Amino acid sequence: MSTTAAKGLEGVVAAETEMSFIDGTNGVLEYVGIAIDDLARQSSFEETVFLLWNRRLPTQPELDAFTKELRGKYAIPNELVEVLKHMPKSAQPMHALRTLVSALGAFDEDPNTVEPEAYRHKALNILAKAPTLVAYFARQRQGKDFVAPDESLSFAANFLYMLNGEKPTETMERAFDVCMILHADHGLNASTFTSRVIQSTLSDVYSAMSGAIGALRGPLHGGANEGVMRMLNEIGSLDKVDVYVQGKIDRKEKIMGFGHRVYKAYDPRATYLKTLAKRLAEDTGNQALYEMSHRIEVLMEEAVAAKGIYPNVDFYSATTYHAIGLELDLFTPMFALSRIAGWAGHCLEQLDGNRLIRPKAEYVGPHDVPYTPVTER
Amino acid sequence: MSTTAAKGLEGVVAAETEMSFIDGTNGVLEYVGIAIDDLARQSSFEETVFLLWNRRLPTQPELDAFTKELRGKYAIPNELVEVLKHMPKSAQPMHALRTLVSALGAFDEDPNTVEPEAYRHKALNILAKAPTLVAYFARQRQGKDFVAPDESLSFAANFLYMLNGEKPTETMERAFDVCMILHADHGLNASTFTSRVIQSTLSDVYSAMSGAIGALRGPLHGGANEGVMRMLNEIGSLDKVDVYVQGKIDRKEKIMGFGHRVYKAYDPRATYLKTLAKRLAEDTGNQALYEMSHRIEVLMEEAVAAKGIYPNVDFYSATTYHAIGLELDLFTPMFALSRIAGWAGHCLEQLDGNRLIRPKAEYVGPHDVPYTPVTER
Repeated sequence: MSTTAAKGLEGVVAAETEMSFIDGTNGVLEYVGIAIDDLARQSSFEETVFLLWNRRLPTQPELDAFTKELRGKYAIPNELVEVLKHMPKSAQPMHALRTLVSALGAFDEDPNTVEPEAYRHKALNILAKAPTLVAYFARQRQGKDFVAPDESLSFAANFLYMLNGEKPTETMERAFDVCMILHADHGLNASTFTSRVIQSTLSDVYSAMSGAIGALRGPLHGGANEGVMRMLNEIGSLDKVDVYVQGKIDRKEKIMGFGHRVYKAYDPRATYLKTLAKRLAEDTGNQALYEMSHRIEVLMEEAVAAKGIYPNVDFYSATTYHAIGLELDLFTPMFALSRIAGWAGHCLEQLDGNRLIRPKAEYVGPHDVPYTPVTER
Repeated sequence: MSTTAAKGLEGVVAAETEMSFIDGTNGVLEYVGIAIDDLARQSSFEETVFLLWNRRLPTQPELDAFTKELRGKYAIPNELVEVLKHMPKSAQPMHALRTLVSALGAFDEDPNTVEPEAYRHKALNILAKAPTLVAYFARQRQGKDFVAPDESLSFAANFLYMLNGEKPTETMERAFDVCMILHADHGLNASTFTSRVIQSTLSDVYSAMSGAIGALRGPLHGGANEGVMRMLNEIGSLDKVDVYVQGKIDRKEKIMGFGHRVYKAYDPRATYLKTLAKRLAEDTGNQALYEMSHRIEVLMEEAVAAKGIYPNVDFYSATTYHAIGLELDLFTPMFALSRIAGWAGHCLEQLDGNRLIRPKAEYVGPHDVPYTPVTER
């Protein structure tokens, strides 16, 4: 028996999850039942990852142990540094990250285990090392020396330290940490689905994570906050916002960072991030950019909020990433750093009662075609 | 609206294809309408790839041009050789292949294009270089010098030449070529589906191909012919076959290489391969292995053919790969070399009228959970 699904499998329930709950109509996102805004304001990325992987918040000793293991894995082995050194300066960071996460599997003596406890440690290892890979690659192409990870620092602070060569301010660390929390999981998006399909063959964590990075690279998926930043650069200054936005509205064109396939209400991830983006802009002298963003939101609210088009998480993460010193093509890798948490969590769910994900294709070509030798064609 | 699909999306039609048609009940596999057995007997892998990507057989000038382009791309650039040299001897070949195909994307100055004509050339480039990557890796871990590709040789002959350091006999070349034809495409299996999901984000050919390699690595997918070989090694000699098979039947255990999720009749890919495997065994002095395989088939036919359990393509590709000198852990990479044709063809189909593949997950966890500070847990 076969059922023809809607294109893109829209509306088809392909898996169960206990991690994120999305109610787009009412603008709700929960991780394991906890509102995303509560987590953004009160939790840390480390605690959020524990929450997603264990379906409950950790006790203090559990959080300490988890954090200790994560920090102990920040450093990347020399043989991987050697591979990284062979990535050309011109390489796009997502291609480099996909390659280097895959390479980690080539260096693992026991890469294929899907035993949940071992899988979890391997996933944590990838999560711990991915920021190091991105930071090293980013400094290498700028001709700068690597800054080795500092195990005394949080996931967020350590990344910014390795990237910029100096410890971040408290606001920078907090803003980045919140971005990591907000992007950690979001239902069965295309990269998460990719990781589950790969995992369903009982393949390994390196295959699942590198495959998901490849899916996230796509412009229909992970590239949106990069688009927001390009738009802000294109507009150039606050006094040009009104004309730009009105022109887009008149021509019925999309404005980057507004609207979401899922959310028809205010994106619950944008609320607190907006506050943080403002504070960060003030701290780092990026007020101009923030003011442009804010003005775009005001104009869009007057024009299209009634149609359910609101700023999404990408809108304010773009200004946040810019303010903490990230180059444009590192925005999508930031998404990947955070989403590794969601991918790995989903893969653990997939492994629990796994069944191979293998839909059908409908063949729409000819039948019974004879093979004619090339001389008779 | 949402529909809960069967686990593993079984029976759900997720895409249309004009490439392969499978009728498992009647044991039919066609590529673009041409019976697989006709292609195995009369076509070449090069021609089959053209057929799959263009939905028709080539004229002689078209085939010549296609072959010339493929051969011109066998060689891998020095910078990729350097990365390959950093893959440790202990690396599993599928992890190395996934990493190196991904790395090709890092070295491409324009990796992201999804314009069909450019995409096709990039896919052909990956197809041409994948055998070189596998052969180089295989020789490197044996401490042997690389054997540079020979553009005067076919895809099949060139691979065997690079691997073994000498040109293959005609039977070896033909048997390997037929294996490549037989594995080139097979509907929406898990790795092909992976490549389409990744491609549906409008990501790039390197992301799609490396993701698919990762999915193929899984024991539920690409690892079956390796399992056949392990079984033959475990049995050891012809005189032990009867006891082994009868024991398995008595204990109702599966015999590797028999039965298929799709085929309930004789796997149409096994027919001609069986003849070739026999000829190859004679030519290479591997009769003992072939005779064991044949005896297993005879016993299984008496016992379970009535239940629709027949040898599948993996059963005779195992003895074929062994006879042409392949180490056990190179069997799945062989599957990958061939299936790149199918993956790329499906991605080209996906790009034509693309829609993001994004099913839903059903959230089955708690709601409205308060965030409690760690001190209160």
